[in-house]
Amino acid sequence: MEKYVIDKLIDKIKEMNNPTVMGLDPRYEMLPESVKGKYEISLEGASKAILEYNKALIDCTFDIIPAIKPQLAFYEMFGIAGMKAFKETCEYAHKKGMFVIADAKRGDIGSTAKGYSNAYLGQTPLEQEKITAFDNIDFLTVNPYLGVDSIKPFVEDCTKYEKGIFILVKTSNPSSGELQDLKLENGETVYEHIAELVEEWGKGLIGKYGYSSVAAVVGATYPEQLKEIRKKAPHTFFLIPGFGAQGGKAEDIALGFDKNRIGGIVNASRSLMCAYQSEKWKDKYSDKEYAKATRAEALLMKEELNKAIN
Amino acid sequence: MEKYVIDKLIDKIKEMNNPTVMGLDPRYEMLPESVKGKYEISLEGASKAILEYNKALIDCTFDIIPAIKPQLAFYEMFGIAGMKAFKETCEYAHKKGMFVIADAKRGDIGSTAKGYSNAYLGQTPLEQEKITAFDNIDFLTVNPYLGVDSIKPFVEDCTKYEKGIFILVKTSNPSSGELQDLKLENGETVYEHIAELVEEWGKGLIGKYGYSSVAAVVGATYPEQLKEIRKKAPHTFFLIPGFGAQGGKAEDIALGFDKNRIGGIVNASRSLMCAYQSEKWKDKYSDKEYAKATRAEALLMKEELNKAIN
Repeated sequence: MEKYVIDKLIDKIKEMNNPTVMGLDPRYEMLPESVKGKYEISLEGASKAILEYNKALIDCTFDIIPAIKPQLAFYEMFGIAGMKAFKETCEYAHKKGMFVIADAKRGDIGSTAKGYSNAYLGQTPLEQEKITAFDNIDFLTVNPYLGVDSIKPFVEDCTKYEKGIFILVKTSNPSSGELQDLKLENGETVYEHIAELVEEWGKGLIGKYGYSSVAAVVGATYPEQLKEIRKKAPHTFFLIPGFGAQGGKAEDIALGFDKNRIGGIVNASRSLMCAYQSEKWKDKYSDKEYAKATRAEALLMKEELNKAIN
Repeated sequence: MEKYVIDKLIDKIKEMNNPTVMGLDPRYEMLPESVKGKYEISLEGASKAILEYNKALIDCTFDIIPAIKPQLAFYEMFGIAGMKAFKETCEYAHKKGMFVIADAKRGDIGSTAKGYSNAYLGQTPLEQEKITAFDNIDFLTVNPYLGVDSIKPFVEDCTKYEKGIFILVKTSNPSSGELQDLKLENGETVYEHIAELVEEWGKGLIGKYGYSSVAAVVGATYPEQLKEIRKKAPHTFFLIPGFGAQGGKAEDIALGFDKNRIGGIVNASRSLMCAYQSEKWKDKYSDKEYAKATRAEALLMKEELNKAIN
């Protein structure tokens, strides 16, 4: 039995020969009429439609994709009903054997960070009992702006509950450099400095592949930085967003991997979720066959990544 | 009718002569037996107890304190039931005329930030309709690590829906300096740089008092920096955490205010919520009189702040 969730995730990636995570960022407007039409136009109805859609995408990919990454914002925007759909999506994916990366980007002062960690990785203490608020989550994304106080409670729960975190280092968005690329007086950039801190914070949780359960988010849209951070943070596993719709290419992503062809998991959200709407697949699959289009796109992405990662 | 929520908040602070916001960070273990004992030990039971406690604290302070600041982590850790308690707390405080600052510290790439903004400030589009997910929120706290892309959707909703945001600049926790105090090659610190960006981002939403609805979080525990940022960001209103339990003093806080005695709102969570347990009040008020202890502490805090702010 593996002790570190990162080992289990890498085992699964190797077994499936696919370093992909499917981002589940459901937008109501992208759902096909065949799904939306069944439910009323309300937060509850939309959340039900989203859950149905997510489940169908999980059903058609769980044997070829190792993990999902639901983005909390897209559930919170449907209120309480949306949070329920998030919880049930995690549960469903977990039952199907997929790893769940909750993309919440939480970050707060120590005692509050502990609250978030209780919510998503650990447990909530109630008198003599401990209860899990949102279960079936393996990894959580975390924001480092508040420093180590805000990271420590998560790391403690990673140890205690065999969980993992991905700390934002270099994000995939156009303005990520506005803060992350600032040059420090010692010549380093902010993101380099954070990458070093992540290596440091994760050193107690390094598994058999040499990677820690305390991992990092590094965007595919900045290949130079990806390469540089791979060198600087050899024990840091990467969650790599920005592939597909955001412009990241397979050959860029390959720079985040090591000589053993491991080191990261690549997220695609829109290109997988909305495959049925794309030029590539819309003539081949009808709206009702959206899940088949997603599976076809997933197989293509797997092939592309494997060709690039050497 | 005021156009900017920041003007309305300042009006209320002036009317009550009290720049206090009550942080509602409920910890189950701090609730008195008289409240906890009524409900079963479960996420649902705990959430009901928390809601009852919050309502009692609102009832005993709404005529003297202008705003509440529920911290999302402490609701998320009770799962779906906790999120309901959060939503109902916001609704109850709003009905009583209090401003609501949702302390969520969200931050993500543009399209995702829009999702968070829909959730807490704006509305969620569903076909021809737009529905509010979490209503009755006036301000949201936001994390700047991803740069302007992650801020813009919130600023747009601030304009459209007369809402406000508080962007993390210098936080109150011990390790805040780990990233925020890093010296840049131009001699500035990261937090100074972010303070300048906040001034810039907020320049379209400056109201009659000279302050913008795009505001900042600056901790009471770093008085030197508070003073410096007040000078550097003259149009930026401050949410000042760290008073009381975290060690911030009234005379430190005064450094965040301008010559007209405005410029910030001071948060106290534990010292107000748990007043009934403190050395100061526990002999005077029984556990059942926890709301009276909170009111007494609130009046003392108001007096202390007013004495210090000149």
